[in-house]
Parts: sequence; structure tokens; C-alpha cells
Amino acid sequence: MDSFKQIEGGVCAAKGFKANGVHAGIKKNSEKKDLAIIYSESLCSVGAVYTQNKACGANITVSKEHLKDGKAKAVICNSGNANTCNRDGVEKAKEMCKLAADVLGIDEKDVAVASTGVIGVPLNIEPIQKNIKTLIDNLGHSKEHAQNAAAAIMTTDTFMKEIAYEFEIDGKIVHIGGMSKGSGMIHPNMATMLAFVTTDCNITSEMLQKALSEDVKSTYNMVSVDGDTSTNDMCVVLANGEAQNNIINKEDDNYKIFCKALNMVNTYLSKQMAKDGEGATKLIECEVINASDIKLARKIAKSVITSNLVKAAMFGCDMNWGRISCAIGYTEDADFDINKVSINVGSKYGEMNVYKDGYGVEFSEEEALKILKEDEIKITIDMNCGTSKAVAWGCDLTYDYVKINGSYRS
Amino acid sequence: MDSFKQIEGGVCAAKGFKANGVHAGIKKNSEKKDLAIIYSESLCSVGAVYTQNKACGANITVSKEHLKDGKAKAVICNSGNANTCNRDGVEKAKEMCKLAADVLGIDEKDVAVASTGVIGVPLNIEPIQKNIKTLIDNLGHSKEHAQNAAAAIMTTDTFMKEIAYEFEIDGKIVHIGGMSKGSGMIHPNMATMLAFVTTDCNITSEMLQKALSEDVKSTYNMVSVDGDTSTNDMCVVLANGEAQNNIINKEDDNYKIFCKALNMVNTYLSKQMAKDGEGATKLIECEVINASDIKLARKIAKSVITSNLVKAAMFGCDMNWGRISCAIGYTEDADFDINKVSINVGSKYGEMNVYKDGYGVEFSEEEALKILKEDEIKITIDMNCGTSKAVAWGCDLTYDYVKINGSYRS
Repeated sequence: MDSFKQIEGGVCAAKGFKANGVHAGIKKNSEKKDLAIIYSESLCSVGAVYTQNKACGANITVSKEHLKDGKAKAVICNSGNANTCNRDGVEKAKEMCKLAADVLGIDEKDVAVASTGVIGVPLNIEPIQKNIKTLIDNLGHSKEHAQNAAAAIMTTDTFMKEIAYEFEIDGKIVHIGGMSKGSGMIHPNMATMLAFVTTDCNITSEMLQKALSEDVKSTYNMVSVDGDTSTNDMCVVLANGEAQNNIINKEDDNYKIFCKALNMVNTYLSKQMAKDGEGATKLIECEVINASDIKLARKIAKSVITSNLVKAAMFGCDMNWGRISCAIGYTEDADFDINKVSINVGSKYGEMNVYKDGYGVEFSEEEALKILKEDEIKITIDMNCGTSKAVAWGCDLTYDYVKINGSYRS
Repeated sequence: MDSFKQIEGGVCAAKGFKANGVHAGIKKNSEKKDLAIIYSESLCSVGAVYTQNKACGANITVSKEHLKDGKAKAVICNSGNANTCNRDGVEKAKEMCKLAADVLGIDEKDVAVASTGVIGVPLNIEPIQKNIKTLIDNLGHSKEHAQNAAAAIMTTDTFMKEIAYEFEIDGKIVHIGGMSKGSGMIHPNMATMLAFVTTDCNITSEMLQKALSEDVKSTYNMVSVDGDTSTNDMCVVLANGEAQNNIINKEDDNYKIFCKALNMVNTYLSKQMAKDGEGATKLIECEVINASDIKLARKIAKSVITSNLVKAAMFGCDMNWGRISCAIGYTEDADFDINKVSINVGSKYGEMNVYKDGYGVEFSEEEALKILKEDEIKITIDMNCGTSKAVAWGCDLTYDYVKINGSYRS
């Protein structure tokens, strides 16, 4: 069977996973948590993808090194400081792993590290040294523990992002859950922003990596808040095998079921990140259908979702579809006939066709306004030249985006 | 000699060129001009580059057809309506050429047409029919006539953009002048926004096209206001030969002098467009030096100038250089060592080094604020891996950009 049931518990939903989050003092505001941990006593298979930004965070360098054997037991993550472009960055990222490993009594090579926050400010390691024992002594597998962790990785996010599902493989109940954070400098490229997924599925590192690498193409990599690809993007999936299904070591039906579950978690977290984009008031979903191939579909969906002009028009509830056709038209390295394209814009209120066969279609401004007043907008682009499709997620461009980013460091 | 003297007169600075601009009624506000013309009685060599957006304006289709012989006498341009994605767009663009040609008594194939404004609203041709005679009857070669034309091509621009130079070829005085408009949907790709350049230089169409195609790579194509490549971008250079220099028909020294003059005009107009980007309070110039090749230099300069996060930080006078190193790092298809890169940020007030060898450099926040309070900011990126360089121009991202584009159509 392949039915999936949404459950509570985020990264603690899967058997054998514990988590926690505390305020250590990296962020000034003592109400805000800034240090998170995820831990599995059983050694996990690991899949991971990282930012391709050349100015990558020190945590990326260290995590790549620690996870190259495809195995891990824990992830330590701080918010409030990206530990990027700092002379002592790698040293401090390693120190974070060692601090966690020592208290957990495990090998530091089995710890991945993630950091998010301002770039270029030296990371103060003291708050982590002082609070690592409290953090780990209070590890637990309740949904509250998962929420502590999800809260501790937030920066400008306005809400926590977590999800979990239960499904069956070989008659065994398997769980998968994840958490993520946005919400600016979000335009992942072949990698992703911070996302952590845990599962008790029994699967090899190789198959887990394959599943993740394929899945991010249609999930995290299809999100854009501002077109800026971060230095610290990272997604890690930990699978500890405690569900005791027969190990997944090839692309069989069980692998497909697992991929489906992974996709559901990643899709949910991706949409939440777009919805919580800095300053956003609206989630914009752009679906491209009937494209000649999936690469074209993805490129066009992302071109539209990334357009500042489309984003600003959505903020203003202005059905300025000319900006959508414009963004379709300037998609790089894309081969298609604009005169076959049709554009629909819709929401909970309803849907309307605004562009067909290369030209505008007359529509009621009043109805258009009612559609765009909703907080989730769906743009559907029919390429009429094939059968491939793709979805991208973004948000509107608002005064608050400018406000948040005009003074991020202060 | 190759000394260049800045003179008045814009597109009327070159011998034999006349221009004018009026309010015809395409824009509602009767204080705003919306119809412009440039005319040379002598047949001109023409160079032209166009947007590569697949959803291109009807004027682009018609101009390409009319200019394919490399010859023209006039350009007609309206603002207030892009005449793009309209079922009768091509018909109306042709009608605009015919209206101008009939009054001028020339062949409509010798008229280029440009349109700028909202996409997808049918163009009302009546105001043009009614005012074409007044427009042309009052053609003149004074600087006021050039200004009338420069004003009539503006949309959300806040000031006119025009420039002219005088220089010598073969002992003959040659003039070149141009005008352009921005100011949103500005991210030209292998083409340009609206820019019109006139010169009395004697040069073949072939050499003129070669000079222009090469020059836009380092001028208009290095400008970005919002990352959105317009449907109607177009740059036309008209050369009527009235300076009577020996015709330029090969890449000799005279060709180089002409290229230098063309570059000065196009560079000035490019910078003005960036400075007048929608909602902008600051011009941002990004110079990449010591790159391994010019393509890399251009890509990196443009990546930085296009970053929403860099733009918002500049608006907030926040020396958040991490966003600059981040934008350098995510430059697509770029091969370089981030650990060799050095970043300086400066203005009229002074300059400071903020990043060196892959790491941040300590600096005074007080001094940084004084640098960033100025209205022209220069970011210099030393790649330390070669001798090539490039400059890109952009502007800050402000509340007003969002305001202007949240309700452009209303």
C-alpha cells in the first residue's frame, strides 16, 4: 500500500529520533531560541545536498567532510550567525561538532553542523560551550522537543515549518518528518536552504542520497523568495532504519514509496518557506503544464516566480499579466513558441484566463481584484507543446521585504 | 586626434537631424508628452539591437522588418502603451510608420517604430492620427526640440536622459548624441532598453551595426534595475554622413574613434537609466577588476548589481558586505577562486576594504555609514586572477519601487 497519513512530531516523528532547541545567547533577544540539535542513537544513513555558492559557509565545508561516509548520528545547528567568510569559521564549525559529540559520547565525525544568520561576523562560540550540556541533557522525542528545534533554526521566519507522515513499507510502519527555515536569501541552486528530515526507514546511504538529489529538483530548488542563493543552504536527511523494513538498496517499489513520502515532506516545507518569504503577504504558486520537457517547465516556472515586477503586481493585487508573459519570454536558454502559450490566474475565489495564443484576453477588473485579494495565488501556464510539468513557489514583493533587508544587521 | 567634447543638443546635436515631441493623448495626463520623432532628410546608415524576449513588442517585429536593409530616415516612438501582446499590434505599429512617412513624404520602410508603457492594453491609434501632423510640422534641430523628444519617450522616468559629444575624424568635425528612457523592467539581455543615438558620422550600416552590437555588451547590457528583461527594448543608431568624413567601412583607426564616441554616449545613458531606476535613491556602480576574462568580469558585476539583498542593504545604508560576497559566489557558470577576491566599497566620501582573501575585514561602522549615505556608491571587486575588467550599473531597492510596481496599471 502507499497511503500516507499526516502525523504530529516533526523531526521527532520517526522512531529513535530526539531533538531539542534552546536560547544559548547567539541572538541578543533571550526570548528567541538559537541552538538546535537532532540526535539518533542508532547510526543513520545520510543524504545531504549543499549550496553551490562559492562563498559557502564554514559549516558546509565541515558537514561535507563529516558526512562523506554517508553516516551520522546528530546535527547541531545555530541561528543568528552564518559563520561564513570568517577567518576562524572552519575551526569553530568543527568545535561545534566536537562540543556536541563529547556530551553525546559519540564520534565528532558523526555530527553534521549548520549555521544561519548574518554573514561575516565572527561566531562567538562561548554561548554554545555554555549551553551545549543543557541542550543535550534535555533531549526528548515529544512534539514539543521537535518544536523547540524547529524554533531554534529560525531567523526572519515568522512561523515554524515542520511536517511528518506515516506510511507502510513491507507491512512495517515507517515515519518521516522534517523541519526547515527560510526566509530571505532564498533561491536555492541545486541544493537547498536549511532543511532537516528524519526517518526510521531502513535505506542505504546511496539510495537515500539518490532520492534526495532527485527530489530537491522539484521541491526546494523550485522556491525563490528574492533570487539570492545563500552561502549556507543545506538539506540533510537522516534514516536510522528503526522501522525495520527490509533495507531499500535498489530502485524498487519500496524505494518509490519512500521517494513519495520524502517528496511530500519536502514539498510541504518548500511551500511554507515561500509563504513565509521575508515581508510576504501572499504565497504565489506557478505551475507550468504541457511543456516539451521538464527542464523547460522548471525554467519558466522559476522565471515567473522570480520576477520582481510580477511579485510587486501581486502585492498590489494588480492583474498585470503582461509581466507574466514578459517573464516567460525572457526565460534563459528556453526554446518554445510564445504564441501557443496560455495563462490562467486563480485563487480560492476563482480562476480566469488572461492570455491566450500570444495575446491578452479581455477580463473583468472587478473579478480579477477578487481573485488577487486572496493570500494564495496560483498562476497556471499552459505551454501547449508537450506533456511535462513543474511547479515553483514564491511570494510577493512588499514594503516589508525592503524594510527587513534595509537594516538586517542592526 | 581623439579628444571628445561634451556639447548640448541630444539627438539634434548631429548635423541634419531634427526631432520633436508632443502630448498626443496616449497618456491621460495632458502635461506629459507621449509621442516623439527623430528625422534626418539624408538617408542614414542604421545599427539596431533589440530585446531577445520571446514575448516581444509589435514595434520590434515591424522595426526589424523596416531596418533590415540597414537604412532609415526616421524613428517614431510613443510612450504610455507598449503595444505588446495585442492582437492588432503589428497592424498598428505599421500604421504608426505609415502615418509618419506620409507626412514626411518618405517611404514607410525608412521609419523605425518604438513603443513603451503597459503591456496588453490595445493601443489607441487615434491620438497619433490626430497629432502626427503637428508633431512633424514643428520638427526642429534646437536643443529644445531634442528635449521635447527625450521627454516624450519617458514613462516612470523622473528625468530626461540625453547627451552629445563632438569629435574629429579625418579633420572633419563629427557629432554624436543620444537619448534614452528607463526606468523599470530594466535588465537588457543582448539588446537594450529604448535608446536612440544620432550621428553625422559617415559610416556604413555594416560597421555601424558591428560597433553597436559590440558596445551594448559593456553599456546597456550592464544595467539592471529589477532583473526583468522588457518585451520592447530597442536601441537604434542613425548615421547620416553629413560630417563628410571619409566613409568608415573597415575596422581602422577612424572606426576606433567612432566606437569610443559611441561608447561615451551609451555609457552615459546607461548610468542615467540606472540612477533613475524605479524608486531609486542611489546609483550603484560595480566594477570587477583583474578577472581572468571579460565574460567572467561581466557576469560577476551583473550578479552583484542584480541582487535584491545588496540593493536593499544599499537603500538602508547598511555595509552588509556578506551579501556582496554571496552574490559573487552564486554567479552562474563562473569559474574562480573566492579566496582570492577582495571587495572595496566607496563613494565621494571615501573608500574602504571590507573583504579580503575570502574573509571579512574589520571596519568602522561610523565610517561605513558616511560612505553609504552618499547617492553614488561604487563597489570594486578585485578577482586577483587576471587582467580583464567590467562595470555594471544598478540602483537600490526601495519602498517606492514596490509602490510604483504594486499599481502600475492604475
